[in-house]
Amino acid sequence: MESSSSLTVALCQYEPRVGDLPGNLATGSRFIKQAAASGADLVVLPELAASGYTFQSEPEAASASQTAEELALTGWGELCREHGLWLVAGFSEAAGDRRYNSAALISPQGLAGVYRKAHLFNDEKLFFSPGDTGFLSFELPWGRIGILICYDLWFPEAARLLALRGAEMICVPTNWVANFRRQATDERGWTMGDYACVGAATQNQVFVAAADRIGEERGVQFVGCSCLVGPDGSMLTGPAPLAGESLLVTEVDLSWARRARRRTPRNDTFGDRRPELYGDLLGRADTVPW
Amino acid sequence: MESSSSLTVALCQYEPRVGDLPGNLATGSRFIKQAAASGADLVVLPELAASGYTFQSEPEAASASQTAEELALTGWGELCREHGLWLVAGFSEAAGDRRYNSAALISPQGLAGVYRKAHLFNDEKLFFSPGDTGFLSFELPWGRIGILICYDLWFPEAARLLALRGAEMICVPTNWVANFRRQATDERGWTMGDYACVGAATQNQVFVAAADRIGEERGVQFVGCSCLVGPDGSMLTGPAPLAGESLLVTEVDLSWARRARRRTPRNDTFGDRRPELYGDLLGRADTVPW
Repeated sequence: MESSSSLTVALCQYEPRVGDLPGNLATGSRFIKQAAASGADLVVLPELAASGYTFQSEPEAASASQTAEELALTGWGELCREHGLWLVAGFSEAAGDRRYNSAALISPQGLAGVYRKAHLFNDEKLFFSPGDTGFLSFELPWGRIGILICYDLWFPEAARLLALRGAEMICVPTNWVANFRRQATDERGWTMGDYACVGAATQNQVFVAAADRIGEERGVQFVGCSCLVGPDGSMLTGPAPLAGESLLVTEVDLSWARRARRRTPRNDTFGDRRPELYGDLLGRADTVPW
Repeated sequence: MESSSSLTVALCQYEPRVGDLPGNLATGSRFIKQAAASGADLVVLPELAASGYTFQSEPEAASASQTAEELALTGWGELCREHGLWLVAGFSEAAGDRRYNSAALISPQGLAGVYRKAHLFNDEKLFFSPGDTGFLSFELPWGRIGILICYDLWFPEAARLLALRGAEMICVPTNWVANFRRQATDERGWTMGDYACVGAATQNQVFVAAADRIGEERGVQFVGCSCLVGPDGSMLTGPAPLAGESLLVTEVDLSWARRARRRTPRNDTFGDRRPELYGDLLGRADTVPW
């Protein structure tokens, strides 16, 4: 059998409901089935797709959480097995006495990995522990992928580390909120999140595949605009609309990421790094000398 | 006197000629005067504005090079003094037995700093030594700025380090070449460089002010599209046209960069960093474990 680096990616944009685990699993399953019918090999669901976003109390957060193994045994895992799919899906992860804002990687064979969000946004700090997995890439049949969640994209260290660890595509379950600009989207219909995806793709020669949620939850407005960006920073699919469900299906060839990194004998975007100049990246902002 | 964080920035887009130091100084002076007449406080010229880009021999490169002190004593320095301007300008720097692709920071009082390009692109490696200054920010009357040159923007470590060192604006003298996409610009008239600027701005909450050159030199095509981007990633001015001279003048308030970093009590984009997870950024790409 010939190996191939081409796969079909489906980004699912919809509205989870806070605290409604069974309902959210059902909505996610509806999208996974649609994606499978569209020929998807890899499906990305939004951040906290199983639980919803705006927890208000500890009991509410606890009741909307589950272990990664439990998540992989739900209908989502069954659909992966049935359709030979891989799935990246956000969920509220119960892990001992801690809770993480996590994304599970589920293969046709079951749970394949977990990423725990490293950079917690705003009130997430009240309900989640900071992720302790670091930034790991995972081997899929078509190449390597990494996972970041939402606010992680605003920390260029994170996408860079995934690229250095071989990721050719970064999957981003996200819950982009109406941001601190006057308008959520610019005249072109792009959010800050779309530009953050393009930035991460351009700087690291990776695909970035972001599945965002929509709707409003307890006063927090989410902005859709899911997108898939190529390793040269070009917008391949999307942005999806600001509101309204959306399924974005794109065929990508992960070898493009590798080709984009070494374009001439004297131009190797990874080999040209100067790590000896980067030491202060390990300092906290208030300790880096000016 | 009240201090202010607002200043007027002028980006100069034009065509230097390789090896023609006197002609290039004259063209640069014409733009600096135009910028002064437009009320500019800070003027940015392209990469290698004094020397041109595509050196073919060692003697040619040597004859187009000068020390930073020499550059500051040319008409460019005189115009800074006469108009009370600050200037960021690319030049081929002679420094002992080495040569750097550098940018000088010239104040109304004279030479204020030099940045030597850390990441050399393609054939630049034949004529320049890799920069040894690291990534430094400079204090100006309105706030702090950093300098990157062209290909540096494709190394997210560089802009990040400048932001951590207090830079509120990154000035980018650049010579963006017709890139490895099929077309230099997309349907919106943006180059990869414009997206790289937006990416760096979005991820670091800094202004990015890029002055590009135009024209063709010995078969290398440059793509203009100079731009000024705000700390939220919004395109404030530009991109300028792909071809044709352009002077982009914009008033910016550098305090926006500081405000963009701490938007709620629980949302501090610099304080939320996780340096303990970033250690492998100091490894070379081929030594980072997957």
